[in-house]
Amino acid sequence: MKKIINDPSRVVSETLMGMEKAHPELKYTPELEVISRREKTPGKVGVVSGGGSGHEPAHAGYVGKGMLDAAVAGNMFSSPSPDRIIKGIEEANGGKGVLLVIKNYSGDIMNFEMAKDMAEMDDIEVEAVVVRDDVAVPDSTYSTGRRGIAGTVFVHKIAGAKAETGASLQEVKAAAEKAIANIRSMGMAMTPCTLPAVGKPGFELGENEIEIGMGIHGEPGVERTTVKSAAEVAKILLDKILADYDYAGGEVALLVNGLGGTPLAELYILNNEVQALLDQAGVKVYKTFVGNYMTAIEMAGCSLTLMKLDDELKALLDAPADTPALKVL
Amino acid sequence: MKKIINDPSRVVSETLMGMEKAHPELKYTPELEVISRREKTPGKVGVVSGGGSGHEPAHAGYVGKGMLDAAVAGNMFSSPSPDRIIKGIEEANGGKGVLLVIKNYSGDIMNFEMAKDMAEMDDIEVEAVVVRDDVAVPDSTYSTGRRGIAGTVFVHKIAGAKAETGASLQEVKAAAEKAIANIRSMGMAMTPCTLPAVGKPGFELGENEIEIGMGIHGEPGVERTTVKSAAEVAKILLDKILADYDYAGGEVALLVNGLGGTPLAELYILNNEVQALLDQAGVKVYKTFVGNYMTAIEMAGCSLTLMKLDDELKALLDAPADTPALKVL
Repeated sequence: MKKIINDPSRVVSETLMGMEKAHPELKYTPELEVISRREKTPGKVGVVSGGGSGHEPAHAGYVGKGMLDAAVAGNMFSSPSPDRIIKGIEEANGGKGVLLVIKNYSGDIMNFEMAKDMAEMDDIEVEAVVVRDDVAVPDSTYSTGRRGIAGTVFVHKIAGAKAETGASLQEVKAAAEKAIANIRSMGMAMTPCTLPAVGKPGFELGENEIEIGMGIHGEPGVERTTVKSAAEVAKILLDKILADYDYAGGEVALLVNGLGGTPLAELYILNNEVQALLDQAGVKVYKTFVGNYMTAIEMAGCSLTLMKLDDELKALLDAPADTPALKVL
Repeated sequence: MKKIINDPSRVVSETLMGMEKAHPELKYTPELEVISRREKTPGKVGVVSGGGSGHEPAHAGYVGKGMLDAAVAGNMFSSPSPDRIIKGIEEANGGKGVLLVIKNYSGDIMNFEMAKDMAEMDDIEVEAVVVRDDVAVPDSTYSTGRRGIAGTVFVHKIAGAKAETGASLQEVKAAAEKAIANIRSMGMAMTPCTLPAVGKPGFELGENEIEIGMGIHGEPGVERTTVKSAAEVAKILLDKILADYDYAGGEVALLVNGLGGTPLAELYILNNEVQALLDQAGVKVYKTFVGNYMTAIEMAGCSLTLMKLDDELKALLDAPADTPALKVL
């Protein structure tokens, strides 16, 4: 195992410590593994997300003005415990309530819901939304129903921007729900990834083999097949997304996401194909994001995400954001 | 070879096409492989960089307000020809002259100098600076003298910000030269990388082997050794940098750079160690950048860069920038 780490058991805490040192506007709470904004905006709905680590920059990289107020990190690929999530809620709470953005994995649902109940007993108003954007498979290893993957980043952006407008908790939740309803994603993996504490890859892929629809923890996808061209990958993933949701005639935000080990150049090559196919399908791309937004440690591969936009979502997408991993001027 | 590409011979052009489609504010010139700003600022010194492809987001990702006016791409790991560079100069020229920022590789020096001479014959005033930030080895496979690596991104930022102030060509060049004089870098590689046209890794590293001081094209470094902890990597690289330039007592900008295949989390873990060592060494970190800024395709590994700051460099570093790969609000 070749990784730039110290003790595998300290990977999460040292990552977040290193993040706090790079971005002094973020505050790290040790032990509870929460990254939150150092400067609070009073009277604003708080937005909190989180989940297992290994998907960096998600989620701590999206804490900052215009996006999250706090991110709660679990161990690698495993959900944060409720006490950690409660700390995240407390950090994010400005007296106007807190929205939790949860990716649809059973552990996350259970722990975030438990934290929500406990925070409500402390008189913090909490609402939750669940992202289920991955169209690859109906149920998966760690989820009942669709998995939540890279589309979650769009939900952070939309909910965060809505919260900055001074909207109520119900309004922020409604904006997040609208985004979620309009988002579909699907991915493809070319190499496995290695959990530091395990020391060897979680599964194997043959030398000329890729897996279509694989999850961001290596969960099985739709099929294993031979290496495809960028044009073929774009078509396979988009066909499934476009068959699931009618994006034709509308405007979308597009995210061409890398899983950690794929060079940026390849993501741009993929984008070139995706844009051509969307054009053919009568889908207008309003804004494109290309990069490593939701990763699976060092996995080589990609995912595509579309979010259909209306005027409200466009304005919220374009609103300023200042976080380590996503800045909108 | 597992890559998201189509034809290996179209990797560079399709990358830049995909970039133009993602960032409509950028203009792609086909065949000549130039990315430039679509909207020109008249009466501003132009800043141009470029070099072999395979280091994305460098250099096209740094084209935009506050940084480069144009970036010229060569084939993978090979210098752009003079005709391409001349096109870059023409795109960047606003009548006030153009500064070329060249990484110190023999092919780049030759081709950029030739393009400079030819542009001058067309009455465009051109100056050039050469970045030689890599302290690993005195001469290298493709360079006489030190190689230019990730520190080049700081030079883009400083020269670009100075040009935006309306400064003269000589003033922009002087700011770039000051930055260059204050910058030192060094890297470490854990895996090789594969040129798409070759189809197999350019060299081999054993299962538990890393190379200290390796260049961004896989050029030999200082030594091959066993996998080190993040703390050890930080110390080895910083010791060499701090021995070469006296950063003590001053303030610096720090870049913890990934080579393409290393997860962001590991770069933050490395940052945590680097910051502790700099603190011990009496070096104050004014601003930190962590991420994939200058890569070697999908190589796993990292580099560290320090730039000593004075009041002018601080102001230029903090000046707004809006490019695909670096935004300063």
